[in-house]
Amino acid sequence: MIRIDDPDDPRIAAYRAVRERDVVGRGERFVAEGEVVLRLLLGDSSRHQAESVLIAESRVAGLEPLLGAAGHVPIYVASPAVMDAIVGFHIHRGVLAIGRRAPAEDAAALLARLPPRALVVALVGVSNHDNVGGVFRNAAAFGADAVLLDGASCDPLYRKAIRVSVGASLVTPFARGGSGWELLDALADAGFTTFALSPSGELTLEEARPAARTCVMLGAEGPGLPHALMARATTVRIPMAHGFDSLNVATTSGIALYRLARGA
Amino acid sequence: MIRIDDPDDPRIAAYRAVRERDVVGRGERFVAEGEVVLRLLLGDSSRHQAESVLIAESRVAGLEPLLGAAGHVPIYVASPAVMDAIVGFHIHRGVLAIGRRAPAEDAAALLARLPPRALVVALVGVSNHDNVGGVFRNAAAFGADAVLLDGASCDPLYRKAIRVSVGASLVTPFARGGSGWELLDALADAGFTTFALSPSGELTLEEARPAARTCVMLGAEGPGLPHALMARATTVRIPMAHGFDSLNVATTSGIALYRLARGA
Repeated sequence: MIRIDDPDDPRIAAYRAVRERDVVGRGERFVAEGEVVLRLLLGDSSRHQAESVLIAESRVAGLEPLLGAAGHVPIYVASPAVMDAIVGFHIHRGVLAIGRRAPAEDAAALLARLPPRALVVALVGVSNHDNVGGVFRNAAAFGADAVLLDGASCDPLYRKAIRVSVGASLVTPFARGGSGWELLDALADAGFTTFALSPSGELTLEEARPAARTCVMLGAEGPGLPHALMARATTVRIPMAHGFDSLNVATTSGIALYRLARGA
Repeated sequence: MIRIDDPDDPRIAAYRAVRERDVVGRGERFVAEGEVVLRLLLGDSSRHQAESVLIAESRVAGLEPLLGAAGHVPIYVASPAVMDAIVGFHIHRGVLAIGRRAPAEDAAALLARLPPRALVVALVGVSNHDNVGGVFRNAAAFGADAVLLDGASCDPLYRKAIRVSVGASLVTPFARGGSGWELLDALADAGFTTFALSPSGELTLEEARPAARTCVMLGAEGPGLPHALMARATTVRIPMAHGFDSLNVATTSGIALYRLARGA
């Protein structure tokens, strides 16, 4: 463990101005926060590498066993005041880490290495960090094999998305980029049946018969999936009460995965 | 419509320091924000009364039909700068309203007036505003008849809870107060079968057979429902992947309501 007393110490430069960097991006690195997320980042199921950890001195004793398993990853320890000065705002939980992304792969490469029976989620235009995080949490809870995101959907390794996912976006494989059309092509090429969720879907979720390889595709709340995209998939609706047919997109993913993981 | 140019105008006193009042409470009044929520507040399905509306001048033209239906409710119009000065922070959507609560009723009184076939949600210790709002949104989407909340759960008419519910907490009847025990007693007295959701539940959600009057009971994320409370109900689990058995409480409500509304 390395004691940090100077907020300008060059060793912890990656932690400076976390919030601003969230907006402009930070290339190959990402920021993880909180004990539960750190445990996943340091664990065997993480697809990404921990580069360093920064914790408040008050958390050291409680995190001892976890930090002992961190191997050669540098652990920086600071007072809460120094930590806040480094980061630029108050870190309630006193636990931060910098991760380094696994090499990116495209949707086709990711789908090619999935098992013959597979369940994946595809997001088109879902730019809200809470929703993307919530979808990953549900994907992990129901054992989905991967998440595909078009280029307009937000980065699952954005700090808030990781936090809302409770770390699931560190463990569930994902590919991000391209258009919804390209995702649909890659899914078809890999033998997936894609169910496009929409309040106007032709089948109810109960009627949808999952295939060996099944994808649940979701659009952003409000606009939903583009009509031209839905015309190329099997559209599926979740029956709702008249006059209030509105579900959050993460909740929708949870209901669809519950049904399709059970039915597969 | 009444033009407001002075942030200290006594007519709009109810809008001052919205954020601080959120914390200390505002008695019989609540704050609603955004066009979708305002539409529900002014609509026939709202259980509560609109007392006044405050909108940015830029929104007047677009909201004309809605505001025309507001009847005798005063509509205050201000510049964005005056509106921000009144409220104390920036209101992105430029639409606020003050509502007056319907008279409170207790769980027993609410349950007594529900139909013979009814589906309700009960929350115990769910103090997170996003989660309570999300539960109400799902309750409305699946046509649940009411939501019961113990006294430790947060007020569904807190501004953020209303917003996250997309206004559902204005239309779905609820009762709040007392302990989880008292809710369970009131449910039993009214002939409800209560399913207590827990990762360690004895039945899977598929196995749970809804009764004519069914209640889904949920605890806070983390602690969950008290064990002694679960001992008095039928406990139900949503099967999840090994190693990541964690769902958000609002998502859990959505999955349970999807299953039980369909199965009832």
